Amino acid sequence: MNWNRRSLAKAITLLESTRVDHRIKADALLTEILPSTGHSFRLGISGVPGVGKSTFIETLGLHLIAQGHRVAVLAIDPSSTVSGGSILGDKTRMEMLSVNEQAFIRPSPSSGNLGGVASHTREAMLLCEAAGYDVVIVETVGVGQSEVAVAAMTDMFVLMQLPNAGDDLQAIKKGVMELADLVVINKADLDSAAAARAEAQITSSLRIYSYRVQSKIPHWTPQVMQMSALKNFGVDEFWQRVSEFKRLEVGNSRFLGRRQSQSQSWMWERIHDGLKAQFQNHRKVRSQLPAIEQAVLSGQLAASTAARQLLTLALQTDST
Amino acid sequence: MNWNRRSLAKAITLLESTRVDHRIKADALLTEILPSTGHSFRLGISGVPGVGKSTFIETLGLHLIAQGHRVAVLAIDPSSTVSGGSILGDKTRMEMLSVNEQAFIRPSPSSGNLGGVASHTREAMLLCEAAGYDVVIVETVGVGQSEVAVAAMTDMFVLMQLPNAGDDLQAIKKGVMELADLVVINKADLDSAAAARAEAQITSSLRIYSYRVQSKIPHWTPQVMQMSALKNFGVDEFWQRVSEFKRLEVGNSRFLGRRQSQSQSWMWERIHDGLKAQFQNHRKVRSQLPAIEQAVLSGQLAASTAARQLLTLALQTDST
Repeated sequence: MNWNRRSLAKAITLLESTRVDHRIKADALLTEILPSTGHSFRLGISGVPGVGKSTFIETLGLHLIAQGHRVAVLAIDPSSTVSGGSILGDKTRMEMLSVNEQAFIRPSPSSGNLGGVASHTREAMLLCEAAGYDVVIVETVGVGQSEVAVAAMTDMFVLMQLPNAGDDLQAIKKGVMELADLVVINKADLDSAAAARAEAQITSSLRIYSYRVQSKIPHWTPQVMQMSALKNFGVDEFWQRVSEFKRLEVGNSRFLGRRQSQSQSWMWERIHDGLKAQFQNHRKVRSQLPAIEQAVLSGQLAASTAARQLLTLALQTDST
Repeated sequence: MNWNRRSLAKAITLLESTRVDHRIKADALLTEILPSTGHSFRLGISGVPGVGKSTFIETLGLHLIAQGHRVAVLAIDPSSTVSGGSILGDKTRMEMLSVNEQAFIRPSPSSGNLGGVASHTREAMLLCEAAGYDVVIVETVGVGQSEVAVAAMTDMFVLMQLPNAGDDLQAIKKGVMELADLVVINKADLDSAAAARAEAQITSSLRIYSYRVQSKIPHWTPQVMQMSALKNFGVDEFWQRVSEFKRLEVGNSRFLGRRQSQSQSWMWERIHDGLKAQFQNHRKVRSQLPAIEQAVLSGQLAASTAARQLLTLALQTDST
């Protein structure tokens, strides 16, 4: 298939559609292009609003294009799944990158639950690979579940932090630090003393998780580095570290294993989401659920008994 | 219903049975006794093997019985769900408590997945309450998922630690520390300097999670204390802290709210487990799953497409 940015954008819109005929076409397209996928490096980037993700991704993207790469940027915006609003969809972001012919930028799918949004982004990633993008960046904002989703679809997960002491504790609390293969302290030029303190603190925090991460990737331990994307300081070093990570990962053959296990988890996650949706849309379940749930809350029915009653209902033919 | 220890034990065996007619009887029994449940304090206790759980629970149990309480001890042994073996089922444990007429001790259900075992333990807890036990202790060993299950069925979750520096990091890593309402450093008499260090370290670790826990229980922040159950040192103080926790919880009306939300989660957990089991037992799914999963692993089929194919199969009538 011959892709340009316009046909790629249209194909992604097709697979985000909820219409049944679109979904059938999208599945056929995915199956067709699947042999041409997988040849990119998939880089996940997360950080709270204001950490400077857009500036960093624009600088990095232009840097990579200058080296001959083609760069796709996708986003998962958890706020869009709740409110329809968008933290990441702002069209004025990454102005220079977005007009570059070697870049493709796509905002977050704007509807569905987080699992559905993440699934659409994974599918979009495959289309970008088939269209010849060899670096795919998936970005999200720092709100826990969306970071887990991005880490579960990328080869390397980077957490961006501000140079102040509170942030690393925030990340530890949410269990995100243990997902990070690399932590970048951005805007380090604003307060170099604070940046150095943050680097020391985060390095010490990462040590807590090092057993787990070591068992995942024997030759790479999570690292911390300082950067100022706005001043273009540290972006070169960032890509050197990514390349080193990639060399070690591919070298010990864990690269394919990680991707296979990601695909498998993705399949089961979609199955479980689908089963829940089928259950909650089942006519008999829908009609009886409120009363049964109320009986559980008021202590008239044991929760396990209620579950068995509802599961029995769900097995009956749904004559909606 | 009139309960003695023998009829209680038989009723618990009934609800652990997998026979359909037993399950129907068990559900009827649960519904019948439900109005008499909920009047106990539900205390979760976890810690690695060797931390001294049995000695502590025996000492605490006898202490409480001397004050006029009736004490039930249930266990969730995650090893039994894997191997049929049992870390917690040892019959020589708690010899003095087990022969006391005011105590009831029941080892872990020995089959099923963790969700099923936890569900049986919750049901057994309800039976114990109906039988008049006003303190129900649910114990487990420190292996992550079983601790989450115990914290999700009790009013207060206590983590037992040994007085050495490595343990608290282990607990942080597994995300268990944030479940703890109270951390007890047992065997503190063996090395009082190490116990003091552990107390300081754990206190500092707990501070990391204090935002989250504070929002759950506004007036209680997780605490750390030293103890030597074998020397009967600290057991009095332990129960004072539990009573203070209980006073604050009931005082701010979060007690009932926590239990209602536990029941609701329990119901949905059983529903989701049941949906997965129905799916995997579906004849057409069973016959096609291996080939479809293989196609996903070898990169011939997108995971989301595979999920949709299997979900469509599962909707067809299962003519097994």
